[in-house]
Amino acid sequence: MTVRAIVFDAYGTLYDVQSVRGLAARLCGDKGELITQIWRLKQLEYTWLRGLMRSYEDFWSTTRAALEFALESIGIAPTPALCDPLMAKYLDLDPYPEAREALGALSGYKLAILSNGSPKMLDALVHASGIAGLLADVISVDRAKTYKPDPKCYELVAPALCVANHEVLFVSSNGFDVAGAKCFGFRVAWIERGGAAAAPEPGPAGFYRLLRARAERLGYPADFRIAALSDLAPLVASLGD
Amino acid sequence: MTVRAIVFDAYGTLYDVQSVRGLAARLCGDKGELITQIWRLKQLEYTWLRGLMRSYEDFWSTTRAALEFALESIGIAPTPALCDPLMAKYLDLDPYPEAREALGALSGYKLAILSNGSPKMLDALVHASGIAGLLADVISVDRAKTYKPDPKCYELVAPALCVANHEVLFVSSNGFDVAGAKCFGFRVAWIERGGAAAAPEPGPAGFYRLLRARAERLGYPADFRIAALSDLAPLVASLGD
Repeated sequence: MTVRAIVFDAYGTLYDVQSVRGLAARLCGDKGELITQIWRLKQLEYTWLRGLMRSYEDFWSTTRAALEFALESIGIAPTPALCDPLMAKYLDLDPYPEAREALGALSGYKLAILSNGSPKMLDALVHASGIAGLLADVISVDRAKTYKPDPKCYELVAPALCVANHEVLFVSSNGFDVAGAKCFGFRVAWIERGGAAAAPEPGPAGFYRLLRARAERLGYPADFRIAALSDLAPLVASLGD
Repeated sequence: MTVRAIVFDAYGTLYDVQSVRGLAARLCGDKGELITQIWRLKQLEYTWLRGLMRSYEDFWSTTRAALEFALESIGIAPTPALCDPLMAKYLDLDPYPEAREALGALSGYKLAILSNGSPKMLDALVHASGIAGLLADVISVDRAKTYKPDPKCYELVAPALCVANHEVLFVSSNGFDVAGAKCFGFRVAWIERGGAAAAPEPGPAGFYRLLRARAERLGYPADFRIAALSDLAPLVASLGD
């Protein structure tokens, strides 16, 4: 079946959320690594919990609350002097090195982002990374006031891009997002980043990786498994009409 | 305001989910600790994700999937010889030492459990631990086909116990459950287990504790903070009429 739109998750898929590590280490020394991992885990947990509790607050506020939790959990006061620069880094995360070129190679398709990020956060990201001009739309779940993998998020895509659900290829590195998009009815490509190959690294980064490196056992496996964004152009070409 | 019913979370509140550690260590040696922590984290994640995805499967199936994920994540095949005894332990978790006596001291109130556990799992637990006779009801979220903190779970309580929501005191050690119950409208007592006092332990158990030891920053703090179930009788007595 024809693919007309390719829709990307942002955090972890186009942008490296682990790129806050350097700044966290500069600000908090050897605790930076632990902060980075607790922050990301709590950020995800808070999106799922707020979605399930029907108590939406936007991703900026949720990300800030997760950061404050992470700092306090290891005995560091969440002062503005610490939190403000770490939050600012979320507006300027490093895109994965292949991202811009990979999107450029897909110019025959409607390209879009569907992300938990708030509209302001996503606007800052796509402009800072120079990909805004390649995208037909940047869809924030804020339009639905809930978080992925709530089906209400994936429902935003088809009307925004004027395509049918079966014409969408959804791309994510996040296992929960793969499951949610597949459960909703999209075709899904899972980017296996830092997957099973790496030997288990000790410490919090290794623990985080163990939690995320494998496909989730939720009953909705991806249709396609790829190693990087640059694998997408050959993949969609192979799908033909 | 009068408390007429006291409703308990089960896993982590009346029963120690960490009591699978001993068996995991016997079966998997020095990986037992890591398996225990990944298993519990994934179990929670899968309940939240299945709730949010509107793709309910019961807690037995979800717990098994989380265990299989945990084993595979560290390169161990999830064989029945490993999984079956670990799952069986979930039917016979250790109650916290003070649980039976603390429930006995609350016999003037309607006591109940509201848990993610499936009806069969909860039935086995309350009988194995000898508290079945103290409870007016054992309410499984299976009746609502979703998971806490979905408000549909907390809605089950009032009709089951023939009380009003404002007559319920809900008791949980799980921060997300505290937030969910409070957001729904119950009065909530949070049992701070192994809280901030303990020095950060290294390794996966310490990491898990960092994620769970503090109140969640979700905007719904508990009304009461207690250290153990035995603090409940004096607490409710102090609330008066």
